[in-house]
Amino acid sequence: MVSFRLTALAAAAGLASFAYAQTFQRLGGCPTLGCVFPPDQQDFLAGQLFDIRLEVHAPVNGSEAFNGGRPDQNFTFFVSKVGETPVPAAQFFGVQEPRLETWNFTYYTDLFARDARAVTPVNVAAKAYRRVALFEPGVYAATLRYYNGTQTTAYWTVRDIAAVRRTKNILLFIGDGMTTNMITAARLIAHKQINGRYQSLMGMDQMPVIGHQMTHSLDSFITDSANSATALYTGHKSTVNALNVYVDSSPDVFDDPKVETIAEMFYRLYQGHVGIVSTAFIADATPAALTAHTRDRGQYGAVIDSFIHGIVNYTWTAWNGPDVIFGGGAEQFCAPSLGGVTYQGQDYYNVFNRSGYTVVQNNTSLQRASNSSRILGIFSVSNMAKWLDRNVYTANYGGQKNSPDCRGGNATDQPGLKEMTLKAIDVLQTRANSSGNNGWFIMSEAASIDKQMHTLDYDRALGELLELDDTLKASINHLSQLGVLNDTLVLVTADHGHGFDVFGSSDSQYMNAQRTDRAKRNAIGTYANSGQSQYINTGSLSYGSSNFPSNWDPRYTLAQGFSANPDHREDYQVHKNGPRLPATNITGFPATDYYVNPTDSPTGFVVNGTLPTNADQGVHSLTDVPVYALGPCQEIFGGSYNSIDVFYKMATCLGLSRPNAVSSGSVAGSNGQGGHYGGQGNLGKDYQGITQYRQYNESSPRYGV
Amino acid sequence: MVSFRLTALAAAAGLASFAYAQTFQRLGGCPTLGCVFPPDQQDFLAGQLFDIRLEVHAPVNGSEAFNGGRPDQNFTFFVSKVGETPVPAAQFFGVQEPRLETWNFTYYTDLFARDARAVTPVNVAAKAYRRVALFEPGVYAATLRYYNGTQTTAYWTVRDIAAVRRTKNILLFIGDGMTTNMITAARLIAHKQINGRYQSLMGMDQMPVIGHQMTHSLDSFITDSANSATALYTGHKSTVNALNVYVDSSPDVFDDPKVETIAEMFYRLYQGHVGIVSTAFIADATPAALTAHTRDRGQYGAVIDSFIHGIVNYTWTAWNGPDVIFGGGAEQFCAPSLGGVTYQGQDYYNVFNRSGYTVVQNNTSLQRASNSSRILGIFSVSNMAKWLDRNVYTANYGGQKNSPDCRGGNATDQPGLKEMTLKAIDVLQTRANSSGNNGWFIMSEAASIDKQMHTLDYDRALGELLELDDTLKASINHLSQLGVLNDTLVLVTADHGHGFDVFGSSDSQYMNAQRTDRAKRNAIGTYANSGQSQYINTGSLSYGSSNFPSNWDPRYTLAQGFSANPDHREDYQVHKNGPRLPATNITGFPATDYYVNPTDSPTGFVVNGTLPTNADQGVHSLTDVPVYALGPCQEIFGGSYNSIDVFYKMATCLGLSRPNAVSSGSVAGSNGQGGHYGGQGNLGKDYQGITQYRQYNESSPRYGV
Repeated sequence: MVSFRLTALAAAAGLASFAYAQTFQRLGGCPTLGCVFPPDQQDFLAGQLFDIRLEVHAPVNGSEAFNGGRPDQNFTFFVSKVGETPVPAAQFFGVQEPRLETWNFTYYTDLFARDARAVTPVNVAAKAYRRVALFEPGVYAATLRYYNGTQTTAYWTVRDIAAVRRTKNILLFIGDGMTTNMITAARLIAHKQINGRYQSLMGMDQMPVIGHQMTHSLDSFITDSANSATALYTGHKSTVNALNVYVDSSPDVFDDPKVETIAEMFYRLYQGHVGIVSTAFIADATPAALTAHTRDRGQYGAVIDSFIHGIVNYTWTAWNGPDVIFGGGAEQFCAPSLGGVTYQGQDYYNVFNRSGYTVVQNNTSLQRASNSSRILGIFSVSNMAKWLDRNVYTANYGGQKNSPDCRGGNATDQPGLKEMTLKAIDVLQTRANSSGNNGWFIMSEAASIDKQMHTLDYDRALGELLELDDTLKASINHLSQLGVLNDTLVLVTADHGHGFDVFGSSDSQYMNAQRTDRAKRNAIGTYANSGQSQYINTGSLSYGSSNFPSNWDPRYTLAQGFSANPDHREDYQVHKNGPRLPATNITGFPATDYYVNPTDSPTGFVVNGTLPTNADQGVHSLTDVPVYALGPCQEIFGGSYNSIDVFYKMATCLGLSRPNAVSSGSVAGSNGQGGHYGGQGNLGKDYQGITQYRQYNESSPRYGV
Repeated sequence: MVSFRLTALAAAAGLASFAYAQTFQRLGGCPTLGCVFPPDQQDFLAGQLFDIRLEVHAPVNGSEAFNGGRPDQNFTFFVSKVGETPVPAAQFFGVQEPRLETWNFTYYTDLFARDARAVTPVNVAAKAYRRVALFEPGVYAATLRYYNGTQTTAYWTVRDIAAVRRTKNILLFIGDGMTTNMITAARLIAHKQINGRYQSLMGMDQMPVIGHQMTHSLDSFITDSANSATALYTGHKSTVNALNVYVDSSPDVFDDPKVETIAEMFYRLYQGHVGIVSTAFIADATPAALTAHTRDRGQYGAVIDSFIHGIVNYTWTAWNGPDVIFGGGAEQFCAPSLGGVTYQGQDYYNVFNRSGYTVVQNNTSLQRASNSSRILGIFSVSNMAKWLDRNVYTANYGGQKNSPDCRGGNATDQPGLKEMTLKAIDVLQTRANSSGNNGWFIMSEAASIDKQMHTLDYDRALGELLELDDTLKASINHLSQLGVLNDTLVLVTADHGHGFDVFGSSDSQYMNAQRTDRAKRNAIGTYANSGQSQYINTGSLSYGSSNFPSNWDPRYTLAQGFSANPDHREDYQVHKNGPRLPATNITGFPATDYYVNPTDSPTGFVVNGTLPTNADQGVHSLTDVPVYALGPCQEIFGGSYNSIDVFYKMATCLGLSRPNAVSSGSVAGSNGQGGHYGGQGNLGKDYQGITQYRQYNESSPRYGV
């Protein structure tokens, strides 16, 4: 339970005052007027690269107004291991003192202020120390002094993790938005039960170790997928919308302080092979977070560029691109002449192709592609087709004008998550074997569990979850056949939840025959009247050895729903004509006021929303999500822990910690204190990816705002 | 994963046809016209006592109408281990052939039939074999033949569990209705967080092993607490409302086929000491299920009698009463002259007192009572006071006229779950030490998590959950101080869920200031705008070293809710005047049509229900619930499993299996086949609680209907 240890130091840090304006925060990670990023209470892997951002705020008005709106430009910043003498940060890390930056921003203090359009301007003085690292395990104090003696101290902990590798490969599945509640529902509709006994089991059910991870953000208790992916991949929680940076207040969305990801470290330390697979458009947050560093997950063009070039506006971890990238989102690859919206107007199919990637755009080509070459597979515009439409309501599969060449055809030869993941395993295993055998890391995301839960489309969401589970089973079998199952840690987890559950059955015949909303609700059977699942063995669909419902449209369906939703209508019946649109703007433009979609679920009853009226879909929820583990190192994934611990556990298994890099004597120099910076000496072969540790300040920002 | 193994035999059994009328089933555990209880696919602990019920149905009308409504009275019933020659059941078990019984019942086939009041009568021929057992591990076939060749075969599996004891004591906590989602919410409001790092942890968070258990019923996917407790305590799933019986169709609610509970077996095999603790009225399902056997959980008087006398209408496991019974529900103890509604009009305080129990009715007396004597502690009429009212809104604690002597005073000296549980440990440990040192089993239930979630009273429910967690921590400390922590397996689980989650924060000031329902919804902050929890460190309440909110009424509260609810109004603010009443019947008597309670949450917005309009509260949900384990034998509680597996795991740890009782040669007789019945021979000292295995048929039913 390392991550939750309350040290005396941490308790002391807790005495800092908090600003309690919740709805709109001045700057989430900084409740005081002096900001240190990474903030107090953050953990680090030994040797993990990160940036530091300091800010001093002077709000011009409001309850926090200070110093006439003039921020202190003479702030100081000292760092030391606790118990040692604080040292100016530039000296401590052996870098040049960064230049002073200034800017301003505005915010609303609360909803009343927003309604009154009463903004609070804040003037800022700031600095950034870039690309530093801490090696020696222990607690460090980083103290910002400003406004004549005010101080903000961040206690940073370098975890004491040995540099011992325990697994060669990691196959990480992420069911986006997937909760235990959803897994339970998916099991019910796809696995036959006799007298309370399941006759088959989910793959997840057969994983030997279960943990629970807490998904909250640094500065809010509900997270989004960018911020949660950051936690899973870097061990650092951040703010909603942020990818692998702490969010500062500057206008530039690409200058926020970065943290190195597991993919970057695995490549830097081992030249490890990385695979990225998702059913989303591939610039979406969960795949993006393996390589991108920006506080704005919406910078899709830059995300795609980061996949192949890494970070280019600052010196950062060298990055040569993953072995495979499989997903949707052709609109960030196609040339602008075909409607592509890409970084710097380039044709990214060409960019990847020139770098040696085989480019494929359908499942047939994917399966035929050599396992020896790197492959970019983009199979549709936007998110890929849903399992339910690909396999059952196939009329929705065509006609989408979503072909990945952006020429207006239909993408009707898309692989599923299973086909993509098995191919990824083949390529990564082949290529790792042929170049050093340093192992591989694959992230495979079932993205549309989340996307379909957002739109209350339960059937499609559960179909995606079942596809994930089918992929899990097939992957384990495939790894076993390849003889590498014992070398591979298989993990299944999620990044956050939706407040979903099943509470009974619904008699569709009865509901459809009733005339009033209240009468329709009496179609719902609770407790004993929920009966048995009718999704299995009441129809004729068959999927070979895979477990999916045999009937998606039985008389007795699941009654299910959310703790939060927009106005909508419920008939608890499958949406055969394609993904659901529960709420629509029927009051004009811009669309800020959503009501029941009059054409959705027409035989159902109206459910008014519990969300703000500008919400057209459901939102993420608080619940801890499960972590399932199988393979070498599985035993450390049991129990309850923070989302960031998933990173530290994976890093432990992959042997990414370098606690002795300095104390072992391999680095010495006069420009820094021992034990906590990188110098220019010989770092040993594990560090071949790093040319130097010195900060390259603000060099030619490449991504403009 | 023993419980889910799909054998070829089980697959064959799956070919049986199913009736798919869901809302109203003819008889849940019997989709065919010939019924065997225990039904197909059931598991048994070696040596566990059970009854067998056979029924042949002849529906008079409807789609299942058969044989002119005349049930076959000449049915036969054979049993054998698979691969051996089937033997008539009476011979197999060495009991007399039971007499034929007949009756009839009616049911509605679906909601249309109910609306039309079109009942379907069913005539029944039946038999019951009582108090039998199977010892030898393996699969048995039990075949009912009826209607000239039709047959229903139940495959029963005796699990292969060694008779090895691995823990001396078990402390089983049940958070009724508690889900991972609720634990996450409780952690958020009671444990301080700085920058995404919790500064303290739940006790549950620190349990090393997590499992997930599936809570569904035998015959419906949503369970109630009686049926789910039956699964946890006997390893047999049943039907909603049933306590330790399979539900037959006879009019007598006390003649359904029984299954022996863990408490009964522990007492029979080891003279083990049992403690029963709950914050509910003590006749409620979760405590009742340790000793009661009836399909109607509402038979409260009989439940209380079963606590002290065990089962008295049939010969059954000898039972001498638990060491402690602590809870509410004085109305089932007080003499009828004081308003008590008791079994046979007796004063059960006197009944227990005459049997040597110290009777206490408040916390002061409880704490003073000797640990050497058995104690009955009943502390209030009905359910006990909620933590929130006992500790924060104390004005609601008095004035309830709920004193446990039923004389109209106020029960204002009630112990909490912690005080009851620690005292239970003291008594059980003292008494076990002084009589054979055979260990103890305590079930401690936080009952009002469920009760308050039913009425959408989030604050009170989370208060109860936090009290459970505080009790867990205190119990582990206490066991450690007593030197018996290493002898005690500590488990925390639930019996089912509610579809609850948190999805943001709510600005109470803003909501209360808005005038329309839609404007009020805009007070809700999602994602980044959910902010940090304000329940900690914004108020002045303090609970010593226990973790509870310091402010239950902050400006920014949790926005939370359910997937299922009646019509109600939400303001997401604490209900200071006592437990919530979300919906009321405003249309007359009888109360079958519920609307928003006009006096509840007056500054909130209306949320229409998603449940039948006769629902005045929320309902249980499908989700798997967590199992936390700490102590000897903890390692077998990881992974995903069925609720019944909790019983088999506990029975494994306590050494309750007797797979070799017969094959060891200790029993032989001409009146039965070897290996699967009990005869009258010497069963060895482990079986001292059993006088014989023969069935005592229908002897003097004591509980009338």
